[in-house]
Amino acid sequence: MAMDMTFLGTGSAYPSPHRGASALVLRTDGDCWLFDCGEGTQTQLMKSQLRAGRITKVFISHLHGDHLFGLPGLLCTVSLNTNSDPQQKLNFVDIYGPRGLRHFLRVTLGLTGSQLLFPYAVHELEPTSDQSPEEGQLSKEMTAESGPPHPQEQPGKTITLDVSSDSYLLFEDKKFVVKAFRLFHRIPSFGFCIQERDRPGRLKTEVLKALGLKPGPLYGRLKAGESVTLQSGRVVLPSEVLEEAIPGRKVCILGDCSSVLGEGPLRLCSGADVLVHEATLGNEHREKAVDHGHSTPEMAAAVAQACCAQRLVLHHFSQRYKPSSLQKEGDEDNVSELQRQAEEALQDSGVEVILAEDFLSLPIPLRRPR
Amino acid sequence: MAMDMTFLGTGSAYPSPHRGASALVLRTDGDCWLFDCGEGTQTQLMKSQLRAGRITKVFISHLHGDHLFGLPGLLCTVSLNTNSDPQQKLNFVDIYGPRGLRHFLRVTLGLTGSQLLFPYAVHELEPTSDQSPEEGQLSKEMTAESGPPHPQEQPGKTITLDVSSDSYLLFEDKKFVVKAFRLFHRIPSFGFCIQERDRPGRLKTEVLKALGLKPGPLYGRLKAGESVTLQSGRVVLPSEVLEEAIPGRKVCILGDCSSVLGEGPLRLCSGADVLVHEATLGNEHREKAVDHGHSTPEMAAAVAQACCAQRLVLHHFSQRYKPSSLQKEGDEDNVSELQRQAEEALQDSGVEVILAEDFLSLPIPLRRPR
Ligand SMILES: [Zn+2]
Ligand SMILES: [Zn+2]
Ligand SMILES: [Zn+2]
Ligand SMILES: [Zn+2]
Repeated sequence: MAMDMTFLGTGSAYPSPHRGASALVLRTDGDCWLFDCGEGTQTQLMKSQLRAGRITKVFISHLHGDHLFGLPGLLCTVSLNTNSDPQQKLNFVDIYGPRGLRHFLRVTLGLTGSQLLFPYAVHELEPTSDQSPEEGQLSKEMTAESGPPHPQEQPGKTITLDVSSDSYLLFEDKKFVVKAFRLFHRIPSFGFCIQERDRPGRLKTEVLKALGLKPGPLYGRLKAGESVTLQSGRVVLPSEVLEEAIPGRKVCILGDCSSVLGEGPLRLCSGADVLVHEATLGNEHREKAVDHGHSTPEMAAAVAQACCAQRLVLHHFSQRYKPSSLQKEGDEDNVSELQRQAEEALQDSGVEVILAEDFLSLPIPLRRPR
Repeated sequence: MAMDMTFLGTGSAYPSPHRGASALVLRTDGDCWLFDCGEGTQTQLMKSQLRAGRITKVFISHLHGDHLFGLPGLLCTVSLNTNSDPQQKLNFVDIYGPRGLRHFLRVTLGLTGSQLLFPYAVHELEPTSDQSPEEGQLSKEMTAESGPPHPQEQPGKTITLDVSSDSYLLFEDKKFVVKAFRLFHRIPSFGFCIQERDRPGRLKTEVLKALGLKPGPLYGRLKAGESVTLQSGRVVLPSEVLEEAIPGRKVCILGDCSSVLGEGPLRLCSGADVLVHEATLGNEHREKAVDHGHSTPEMAAAVAQACCAQRLVLHHFSQRYKPSSLQKEGDEDNVSELQRQAEEALQDSGVEVILAEDFLSLPIPLRRPR
């Protein structure tokens, strides 16, 4: 199954003509999952190879505007374009994010008379009080849902921290288990861990033939891990007729943070194929970065190393860092210096460092059988 | 006093890489007044010659997302950039728009923990029930202001229709009288009439000298329209010592509409130097346009003619119309055809037709004395 990740915005604080506000798409078999949706994301999507109409899930790491202000408009435009393209199927859109997100969407869509042609649900993560300074926490008064729900709003879940695993279970299906974990920022922020399930290896057709088994439903049951008893009484174990399993990939996408909270996130992200971490400012601005709830390349590298990630992707750069393509010789703030700083911190660790830019598309290859 | 108008977005329904969502800036002596603020307006502003930090007033014609979704982000970015540029003075921002706008801003800024360094007030226009179909009207439940106001939110006015003039008085000061008027659209929509006050003509210095008057405070009083009594008892009338007055300019900017409501708007816009009117679809799509609460070039032309406007500027084009610069020969939907249709409807009327494009800047020259 093909999997890739496309960065739609890699700037922090606000969108600019050179860097969009935070947004990235993880694509699996054509389904698009959107992580954060800063203002202008819909226009960035139009410029990319991706189709907004394929978005089935949205994950909002935290409620800062540079990660959220593009969401109402994106939903409206998806609906408008669905309308004009009858080929497009109407997706149910599941939206995950911190408490307050449901009210935000209800008010922004409601007051603007925005009609949607598809149903959506907002599943809210309940933050804990140690995810931000006190002034960054929303009062119950502010998130109380006043006013009628949007006609397309379906009931959403309230998801609380599972203390034993130090994480939030967002959903699991046949292909994926998706969890969230806590980060420390100016307001409560979350990271997401997308764990693909291991898939059974290929059927050994030679062995099956030798056992006298012809292609049919039994093949499916063996592949699904069931033992099968032949008419002769012989029990065939899946392990006899299957190649080695293909381990699932793991993609971890962290929201804005100056640190992860607790050990849970590191366990959860352990061995990630890709870890996406912010690096708002260079190491030389560490104090300022931390004051604003942000990280430097060195801090991002420490997280990647603690998780034994294979690849660390940096993004969410201060708008002072122009994209490499617009960099001029002698420019003071050089984004490639951020990469160098992370690489320096990771030397000999084997972690590869990648600098995200708007529209960078990153394939996430299948793992080899163990 | 220099006055000009810059179009930041001329597309309808949503922003695209080729046309921004609705926004334009009227600039008078460096002060910027923003009319509508679709998603991406802040990025369009960055690409223009204008400075977002000079915005002192915002006017929202109606609450559709393509006119509003950029406002929370714009305010945040103005604040951030004010912060980093201590030269910039902190403006009080007055925001005018339909009922519901105050709640929209309170919720979007509040839930996102958006800090602003400047105070703002939202002055709400109370629509009448004939401005839209019933389903386009907001219930009191939806606009009820729940939750605490933003720390920077100052009390705003509620402005109701002045029945005698069929208009809403937004404010008046030494230089301007600004009113709003009612339009018919899918949801309540407004137009704005910016009337510059007439200014006294220049002092006739020869005459003043002959009267024995030396430069000083008396000059100012005469210029302000006061009569002055000399020590000799001679009364000097302003009309004796002033050149002819310079008539104030009139700029009318209409929100989305399929018609203006009543005769008041036409009287108010009478003789406008510039009338900005939407033309979402060509004449051949009139039925569809009206169904969606929009206008064709012919309909816009009829309003301009009824007002005896000097110039009609068309904007808010369906995204099917590419900008002229991207138009290819043989393209089906040609935006210059919209101009032709308006010109055809206005032939012999003397009204000039201008097609807005993103970043078009239009000077509004001083009127000549009558
Ligand atoms: Zn951010
Ligand atoms: Zn943030
Ligand atoms: Zn519109
Ligand atoms: Zn509209």
